[in-house]
Amino acid sequence: MPTLGVFDSGFGGLTVLRALLPQLPGTKFIYVGDTARLPYGAKSQATIARYAVESARFLEAQGSEHLVIACNTATALALDDIRASVSIPVTGVIEPVVAMSRHAFPAADTLILATSATVDSHVYRDHCLRAGLHPTEKACPLLVPLVEEGWIDHPVTREVLRIYLAEALEQCSPRLVILGCTHYPLIAPLVKETLQSLGCDAAVVDSAEVTAEAVAAQVRKESGPRSETKDATFSCFATDSVEKFRRLGSHFLGQPIPKVELLDLGG
Amino acid sequence: MPTLGVFDSGFGGLTVLRALLPQLPGTKFIYVGDTARLPYGAKSQATIARYAVESARFLEAQGSEHLVIACNTATALALDDIRASVSIPVTGVIEPVVAMSRHAFPAADTLILATSATVDSHVYRDHCLRAGLHPTEKACPLLVPLVEEGWIDHPVTREVLRIYLAEALEQCSPRLVILGCTHYPLIAPLVKETLQSLGCDAAVVDSAEVTAEAVAAQVRKESGPRSETKDATFSCFATDSVEKFRRLGSHFLGQPIPKVELLDLGG
Repeated sequence: MPTLGVFDSGFGGLTVLRALLPQLPGTKFIYVGDTARLPYGAKSQATIARYAVESARFLEAQGSEHLVIACNTATALALDDIRASVSIPVTGVIEPVVAMSRHAFPAADTLILATSATVDSHVYRDHCLRAGLHPTEKACPLLVPLVEEGWIDHPVTREVLRIYLAEALEQCSPRLVILGCTHYPLIAPLVKETLQSLGCDAAVVDSAEVTAEAVAAQVRKESGPRSETKDATFSCFATDSVEKFRRLGSHFLGQPIPKVELLDLGG
Repeated sequence: MPTLGVFDSGFGGLTVLRALLPQLPGTKFIYVGDTARLPYGAKSQATIARYAVESARFLEAQGSEHLVIACNTATALALDDIRASVSIPVTGVIEPVVAMSRHAFPAADTLILATSATVDSHVYRDHCLRAGLHPTEKACPLLVPLVEEGWIDHPVTREVLRIYLAEALEQCSPRLVILGCTHYPLIAPLVKETLQSLGCDAAVVDSAEVTAEAVAAQVRKESGPRSETKDATFSCFATDSVEKFRRLGSHFLGQPIPKVELLDLGG
C-alpha cells in the first residue's frame, strides 16, 4: 500500500486530499496541517519556506513515497526549498494547473485569484508566461477568512468577490480564471456566478481537482499498474488544536475526520 | 531612562504603543510583533501561551523593566503563563479596561467584541462578572482581516459590523461596548455609528487608550516622580518581514516606523 504525504498550512489542502482519495484506491494518505502557524498567505518567503520544509521532512520520515504540497502559497514560495530538503518526488499545485490550462485553453487570457503572498511571488505569472498564457494576478486576502468563518454562500462574500473581480476585470478580459488557493474550491460556484453577473463567461479552474488528477497519474507511473480494490485511507496531523481541525476540516474534506494527532514542529 | 517592553502577535499592539508614547516621556519602548505566527485569534491556549512566553522572555532579556501585553488574545490566554515566566511586572489589556468600566459604568450591561480565541476563553466575561458588570461576548473573526486589508471605512466592513452587532443586540441591550482587540481602535468610529444605526447608544471603550493610561500610572508609581522633558523613543522587532511591518505598522502607530529588526524566536 503506497504512502502519500499531503501538506498544507491549514485546512485548504483537504480539498486536494478530498479529490485524491477516489483517484488512488488502496493508498495510505498522511496529511499535515500546520495550523499553529497559519495562514501562510501574508507571510514572507523565508518564513514560509522554513515552516514548509519542517512539515515536508516530517512527512518523509513518516514513510511518504511522494509528497503533495496542497497549498498554493507554499508551492509558490517554497517548492524549490522543499524539493532540496527531501529525497522523494514532490508535486505542487501550480505546475499541474498551468499545464492543464495551456492544454485546454492555449494562449488564453488568464486571471489568477490567490493570496497576497502567492501573488507577490509572481510564480503563477511566470509559469503562465512560459506556457504561452496571458496572465493577470489578483490578490484576494479576505477570501480565506470568509471561508474559514463559514460564510460560503453569504451576501458579504458575494460583495467581497464582486469588488475583487470587478477590480480584476478592469485589467483583463479572461477566458480562464484559476482558483489559486486551496480554500477557494468551497466558493467556486460563487466565483462563477459573480463573474457572470459582471458579464464574464470565463471557465473556472479549481487547483485541487486538477492537482489530484496530475498526482494520481504521476503516482500510477511511479508505482506501476496495480489493481487495488480497497478504499484509500488517511490520517491527519495538526500543529494546533486537533479538536478545531476535526470540526473545521470536515467541511473541506467533505466527510468526518475521525482522529487528528497533535504534531509539535517546535514552532 | 526606563525601558518598557510591549508585545503583540502583530500590528494591533501598536495602537497601545501609540497611546503610551505621549503618556511616558523619556521612556524607551521596545515592541515585539510576532508576525511570523499571527494571527493568534483562532489558535489554542497552549500554542498562544508558548508563543507569548518566548516574546516576553526576549523583552525581559532586552532590559525591559515593565511588560505590556498589548494583545487581548495573549492577555486572555497567556497572562498567567507570562507572569510566571518573567520577573518584571506585567500588565495585560483586560484588567485595566474592566477596572475602568466598573468605575465609569457600574453594573452596566456590557458587550465585549473580540477574536474567537478571546471569546472562547471567557476571560473578559469572568473579569466583568467579578466587577459586577453584566457581560455578553461576541466573536468577530472577520474584523482583523478587514482592518489588515485596510478596509477601515468601507461598505463591506460596515456590513460585517452590522451583522455581528445585530446578532449581539439580539442577546443584550448594552450601555457599554468594549473593543476587546487592539485592531479595533481603527474602526471605533464605524462601531459607534453602526450601533447607533441599530438604535443602540452605548459608550464605546477602546482597550488601547485605557491600557496606556493604566500602564503609565503604574510605571510612574514604580519609578517614582520624574520630570522628563525628552520624547519617548521606540524600537520595533518583528518575527516576519520587517518591510511589511514598517509599511502596515505605520497605520496602527499613526507615524512612520523608521527601522524594524528581524527577530528569530525559532518558530
